[in-house]
Amino acid sequence: MDIISTSDHSSIVAINLFVALLCACIVIGHLLEENRWMNESITALIIGVGTGIVILLISGGKNSHLLVFSEDLFFIYLLPPIIFNAGFQVKKKQFFRNFMTITLFGVIGTLISFAIISFGAMNFFKKMNIGTLEIADYLGVVNDATSVVLFNAIQSFDISHINPSIFFQFIGSFLYLFFASTVLGVIAGLLSAYLIKKLYFGRHSTDREVAVMMLMAYLSYMLSELFYLSAILTVFFCGIVMSHYTWHNVTESSRITTKHAFATLSFGCEIFIFLYVGMDALDIEKWRFVSDSPGTSVRVSSILLGLIMVGRAAFVFPLSFISNLTRKSPYEKIGIKQQVTVWWAGLMRGAVSMALAYNQFTRAGHTQLRGNAFMITSTITVVLFSTVVFGLMTKPLIRLLLPSPKPLLSRSLSSEPSSPKSLTLPLLSNGNGSEVDLGNYNVPRPTSLRMLLATPTHNVHYYWRKFDDAFMRPVFGGRGFVPFVAGSPTEQSGHQLQ
Amino acid sequence: MDIISTSDHSSIVAINLFVALLCACIVIGHLLEENRWMNESITALIIGVGTGIVILLISGGKNSHLLVFSEDLFFIYLLPPIIFNAGFQVKKKQFFRNFMTITLFGVIGTLISFAIISFGAMNFFKKMNIGTLEIADYLGVVNDATSVVLFNAIQSFDISHINPSIFFQFIGSFLYLFFASTVLGVIAGLLSAYLIKKLYFGRHSTDREVAVMMLMAYLSYMLSELFYLSAILTVFFCGIVMSHYTWHNVTESSRITTKHAFATLSFGCEIFIFLYVGMDALDIEKWRFVSDSPGTSVRVSSILLGLIMVGRAAFVFPLSFISNLTRKSPYEKIGIKQQVTVWWAGLMRGAVSMALAYNQFTRAGHTQLRGNAFMITSTITVVLFSTVVFGLMTKPLIRLLLPSPKPLLSRSLSSEPSSPKSLTLPLLSNGNGSEVDLGNYNVPRPTSLRMLLATPTHNVHYYWRKFDDAFMRPVFGGRGFVPFVAGSPTEQSGHQLQ
Repeated sequence: MDIISTSDHSSIVAINLFVALLCACIVIGHLLEENRWMNESITALIIGVGTGIVILLISGGKNSHLLVFSEDLFFIYLLPPIIFNAGFQVKKKQFFRNFMTITLFGVIGTLISFAIISFGAMNFFKKMNIGTLEIADYLGVVNDATSVVLFNAIQSFDISHINPSIFFQFIGSFLYLFFASTVLGVIAGLLSAYLIKKLYFGRHSTDREVAVMMLMAYLSYMLSELFYLSAILTVFFCGIVMSHYTWHNVTESSRITTKHAFATLSFGCEIFIFLYVGMDALDIEKWRFVSDSPGTSVRVSSILLGLIMVGRAAFVFPLSFISNLTRKSPYEKIGIKQQVTVWWAGLMRGAVSMALAYNQFTRAGHTQLRGNAFMITSTITVVLFSTVVFGLMTKPLIRLLLPSPKPLLSRSLSSEPSSPKSLTLPLLSNGNGSEVDLGNYNVPRPTSLRMLLATPTHNVHYYWRKFDDAFMRPVFGGRGFVPFVAGSPTEQSGHQLQ
Repeated sequence: MDIISTSDHSSIVAINLFVALLCACIVIGHLLEENRWMNESITALIIGVGTGIVILLISGGKNSHLLVFSEDLFFIYLLPPIIFNAGFQVKKKQFFRNFMTITLFGVIGTLISFAIISFGAMNFFKKMNIGTLEIADYLGVVNDATSVVLFNAIQSFDISHINPSIFFQFIGSFLYLFFASTVLGVIAGLLSAYLIKKLYFGRHSTDREVAVMMLMAYLSYMLSELFYLSAILTVFFCGIVMSHYTWHNVTESSRITTKHAFATLSFGCEIFIFLYVGMDALDIEKWRFVSDSPGTSVRVSSILLGLIMVGRAAFVFPLSFISNLTRKSPYEKIGIKQQVTVWWAGLMRGAVSMALAYNQFTRAGHTQLRGNAFMITSTITVVLFSTVVFGLMTKPLIRLLLPSPKPLLSRSLSSEPSSPKSLTLPLLSNGNGSEVDLGNYNVPRPTSLRMLLATPTHNVHYYWRKFDDAFMRPVFGGRGFVPFVAGSPTEQSGHQLQ
């Protein structure tokens, strides 16, 4: 046995195979780029399931995993880059201009959806005798940043005995988590902007700037975990602040590097999760409990899927109606087709869903419990079904519903199943506009969906900009900040001026 | 307890503190940039030791670690980026032009140094009664890519009974490892170049190009581990091939991204290792065995340090002499001052040394053995002493020995203690020339050291270039390769042409 390779040989084989599969996913995803139906997540899921079947056959039905990860992996390593990048690539201008609509859909919408899904699931599943489940267990199948906050807020409450006092306590706890997490993310982002502006790292090394940005973002996530806040919200807002201030304070080459490196990291983590979920879907232990009552299993999955669809419909259409009431010109209103699109896009439960489900139901070998086994298999079914079936239908649906040029939208919808939908969805028509993924269409932005974003918050945005220009930008830099020495991609010239 | 943060809370505290310390190292390293003595590795080591002391005091003398890593961590995650980047940033032109000199110093030199250190250590330590040690244990204190190959090659041999047949077997095994590892790295690099050129990922997404490059490089490392080859050599040559072919086949923004992302990753991993080594240096368990015979411990460390100095002198000066014999003009010869510089620069045992020592002596709690405890504490002492003391003396020494403008060199020497020295040292005057780290000096390259590279291999280089232009570049791309659509940093324009 080789001395240098200390890991046992089987884990090296597994890592090799896993890395090779990741490569395959990327290559195949590229080749299917122009395909009408497919996207990278579906490819990764299918490759994952296929590999799972092969491993299952080779191992004689014992195992379908290459690697077994602790659920920590998702929350400590894979999720932060995905969420940070979602915040980092958001178009700030549109985000701030439409902050009220986004909050309306993100917070109120998720509250409605969350209530419907969780209480619906509770009532249905109690009648079905699928084993003992804690109250929090019913809530493990919703995603979105907000629902993670809800998820945290609800832990300390006994919801089975609701009275007004507990209800207001819960709302208070939810608001505290929401604002504290946001503030922490904003502080971390501003600190990085201030540090980089003051010290001007680029003078000596691009690498330091990039490293400091990454480390500070990760630090904000971990600090939020430390304080029992919502790390996902924190790192999302840290990403927004960093792209608004910090990113403008670094050298030109750091800008290009961070932008693409963060996107690549996020992209890689997403594929990783889908590949893993695909393999894990066949894990035999989970299905053993379910196999003696396949009817129940199908029913649980269908109910969950139905509840998700109803839960989302229950806030998209009413909130759109309310939003439309505040708009004067019919041009600005959200049409019914756009409402359907917004509803549809949120149905694909992505990587975050899966991570929450793993976290809730597989801890310390809890799959052995009948109820947990049902919940995790149902979640896997819902994620697989919604990603593959709904995902495949998305591009044609969008083409049907919205007049061309809509490939831009369908691409965004289907390629980002794991970003926090409630927060980024209203941004779709503008989000990632400069991303290369979308660059090949190079079409004017779909005006119809952009209208969704026109809200009566122009004034808020106006005052924010005045405040930003007067107080924030002199301290924290931002767009138009000129460092002592302008950086160039090669960073070779000009440094002697310093 | 929060549900979302599944890790136990203490490990989250540890990660927070560790990430914050990494940030501090970078910021302090930046502030000390213009300092005559310090560099980032020394800063990280000192901060690590300081934190270790604080933790030791807080925990009441029980523990000095924030995190305890398996030694796998070094070889599976931290070393690949460092070595890959060393290969990726090498100036290929100089590297290929001086291939013979590099091989002479790298292979023959390390063989000589390796023999002196290991047999010297064996003879000294046998007399000192520091416990039982395997033959391979004596060899755990040398670094460099070549010595890792040697380390692997020597595992299967019983060197205590050397005869000519075993000697030639050993040489054969060494050559096999060396060439097989190199070929694997070259194949992986060429495959990535071919894939990216053929599929032209940039058409759709910059992220895919970057992801494929990273994954292929990592795959080459892991494949090499899988086949019991030298993964360090493989990934080093993979880096060289990727920068010669693959890098030229990707879009402009991918080029900037990969260049800086790889450098940042490598930089971060180095600081991580030094910070960890600094903390680990105070680990109480290791020192317990040593504390009852402090004299022996000091003697072991001094002997190792002495052997390293003698071992390096034993090949730098004779090989320089041989090399000088083949050169005609006195202008091309390696002066004595330059020889001293080359000798000195290799004395700093870096991250790779440390990783080898951990790997060899701490496996499965082997620190309990008296001999292992002595070896690991001595290695820590040698690494700390050589990094801090020799490191602090490097900048002034270089200034003394070589006429200005030499800051370029001293910076290279002291900022890269962990790159495989034997391979990169002869390249120092040209290596990393485009790195921003060095950009602020912006001086003409030191002609005196560049002369070290002028060897009678111009012909080899000439024929290689002809071969490259005629056969390699048409297939694998490389400098001057023009993709269908030229990419731009924003990637917004031009895609419609496709």
